[in-house]
Amino acid sequence: MVNVAVLGYGTVGSGVVEVLNTNKEIIKRNVGEELKVKYVLDLREFEGDPVQEILVHDYDVILKDKDVKIIAEAMGGEEPAYTFTKNALLAGKSVCTSNKELVAKHGAELLEVAKANNANYLFEASVGGGIPIIRPLNDCITADEITEISGILNGTTNYILTEMSEKGAAFDDVLKEAQDKGYAERNPEADVEGYDACRKIAILTSLVTGAQVDFEDIHTEGITKITDVDFKYAKAMKASIKLLGISRKIDGKFYSMVAPFLIKENNPLYHVSGVFNGILVHGNMVDDLMFYGRGAGKRPTASAVVSDVVDAAKNLGKHIPVEWNRSKSEIGKFEECKSRFFVRMKDKGLDDDQMMTIIEAFGDVLYVKAEGVVDELAFITNEIREDDFSEHLKKFEDVYSVIRVDF
Amino acid sequence: MVNVAVLGYGTVGSGVVEVLNTNKEIIKRNVGEELKVKYVLDLREFEGDPVQEILVHDYDVILKDKDVKIIAEAMGGEEPAYTFTKNALLAGKSVCTSNKELVAKHGAELLEVAKANNANYLFEASVGGGIPIIRPLNDCITADEITEISGILNGTTNYILTEMSEKGAAFDDVLKEAQDKGYAERNPEADVEGYDACRKIAILTSLVTGAQVDFEDIHTEGITKITDVDFKYAKAMKASIKLLGISRKIDGKFYSMVAPFLIKENNPLYHVSGVFNGILVHGNMVDDLMFYGRGAGKRPTASAVVSDVVDAAKNLGKHIPVEWNRSKSEIGKFEECKSRFFVRMKDKGLDDDQMMTIIEAFGDVLYVKAEGVVDELAFITNEIREDDFSEHLKKFEDVYSVIRVDF
Repeated sequence: MVNVAVLGYGTVGSGVVEVLNTNKEIIKRNVGEELKVKYVLDLREFEGDPVQEILVHDYDVILKDKDVKIIAEAMGGEEPAYTFTKNALLAGKSVCTSNKELVAKHGAELLEVAKANNANYLFEASVGGGIPIIRPLNDCITADEITEISGILNGTTNYILTEMSEKGAAFDDVLKEAQDKGYAERNPEADVEGYDACRKIAILTSLVTGAQVDFEDIHTEGITKITDVDFKYAKAMKASIKLLGISRKIDGKFYSMVAPFLIKENNPLYHVSGVFNGILVHGNMVDDLMFYGRGAGKRPTASAVVSDVVDAAKNLGKHIPVEWNRSKSEIGKFEECKSRFFVRMKDKGLDDDQMMTIIEAFGDVLYVKAEGVVDELAFITNEIREDDFSEHLKKFEDVYSVIRVDF
Repeated sequence: MVNVAVLGYGTVGSGVVEVLNTNKEIIKRNVGEELKVKYVLDLREFEGDPVQEILVHDYDVILKDKDVKIIAEAMGGEEPAYTFTKNALLAGKSVCTSNKELVAKHGAELLEVAKANNANYLFEASVGGGIPIIRPLNDCITADEITEISGILNGTTNYILTEMSEKGAAFDDVLKEAQDKGYAERNPEADVEGYDACRKIAILTSLVTGAQVDFEDIHTEGITKITDVDFKYAKAMKASIKLLGISRKIDGKFYSMVAPFLIKENNPLYHVSGVFNGILVHGNMVDDLMFYGRGAGKRPTASAVVSDVVDAAKNLGKHIPVEWNRSKSEIGKFEECKSRFFVRMKDKGLDDDQMMTIIEAFGDVLYVKAEGVVDELAFITNEIREDDFSEHLKKFEDVYSVIRVDF
């Protein structure tokens, strides 16, 4: 029997206990022996819940118990999760987590500590919820040069964009509805500003490059500026607007960003709708792969945490190598990224030399019309560097919208 | 350095050599040491190809060379692949294969031999080409009770159905075009009759149940009877026709079959088009997962074989446990499977009591109309057992088409 402790009895933590209980026999068969939840750490009380019997408020009880071999950390946030995790690893206990903030920031260091102590730091649930992506990257796609990893990494924003697209509704209205349904937090900033997706693409890019990618270095835009009018144009172009985390290798360097993109049906992510996530991996031999599933939610996320617990239990006392060291990964500068841009601006009418200025700034552009939208000009530029685009855009007043185009 | 031998220098075998050469450095980093192709076995000569220098015609050279630790079997077919594989495993060499016929038939036995000799028998490439699905099933989805595994497992038939759907073309015309493009074999039987998909769903179901599922026990229908008129109805229902391999757990038993199905957009497989494959896994905790990518082709398939070679090289002398024993898996009887059925038959006109007979046979059915199709009746039944359906269908003459409905 292998003893497990769960840190935090919120959504994910209680899900971990539920998965371990519900699928006890299957998990026992997969591990080769039984997994037992010996402690749950939480500051709160849970009167009437059977968890009360194994509830502790003091982390030291868990840390000092040599019978506890594996810890499922489901607290979230940086502290005290960081200190708890590090101390557990130093004591030779393996830690499995869904905590993307912690993994993005301290993943490389915690992997190093795990290795030095013949333990494991596993974080399948930190990206893509229940979707297996971390383990496939480490253990399955091992014969390819990965040249792209990109994805719909946040279910809340994908739900909002899907609803805006299908119902023609405004951002604020859909956000409110999503909050009422529990799909969006009361403070939705981390999701709608792209911060959550940014941490996830930072983790994926760190794994792909084998070195540390700091999330602060990744240009991040959210979806708050996307309007129903943008979706009218998207429809006219048979395109969809998706918040993507993208890392692409160009001339030997990865370029990363989080931003809304216009994509078309030839991109497998086009059909990833609602709260679902999809992660696209492109290898030089295997071509496109996509991993699809529920990117959030109690049970799917807990399923991923427990799959890590199973792995940790099968590898007690043995570190599973993961390529992610603390040296800084040399990712390309945002200014040098090249994209095509969809731009909407006020139509100044025939008296103005606006179209001449557009040609001077962006060369030949592709004008786009959307049904029922008047008094504005909308066009798609050729591929252009981010810094050049920003510089040229300054020449225009009354710009309504700028969205990158990935087709 | 780890020495590898490749059996067969056809499409997949030459792909394996290409992947090992092209991605030499990446693979070296993933394994921890260099992989070297010491021999390629083929009866033919390849004058002018560098492979000629390491070409052997006698398998015994490879078998007796103690330096060869891993064999990539890319010959296909049952013999001599079976004998070669078994002898390699008995000699403690690991074998990695794309050979679905062999895996479906002898997988359990060869895994047993591998285990007894501290070697590995790995077959990621046998299902879904380049898509990681075998390793995810064994190593990632370990915290769930898997209640369904189904998929578009054959790229040739999916290409044909996609073209029929998009162009309104007839089966024979699209098949010919697919043959001309090299997407279909000159003898297309294994693909279009569903035999290939059948072997793949047999392998997946064996892994999910942990015991032997014989492909002969799986009811298999191909796509040769699907017509352009069926697609007119599919369009009218906003549905698509896909050849699916399906295994679903109902009341504790898996029910498997290969057949064309009408599916709708709520099924993630709906959007898997052209030569791509998609495999859907449903777990009781993680809900729906889908794995998507190229299900065939030289490089994608070779990428999967080499990912197994990497795994074998990292685990020399150590068997990686796989749950698939030789005892026969108790899968449910086909006759007991329940489906809804889409049925098209000649419209006998008002003078006939045809509609009364339909009600007597199938109860309330849902009538469907398709634009431009006249003189026939088309309807969808409620859920009904296969044997009952067949029995009732005998009451009708001039049945044009029967397709199962998965919505």
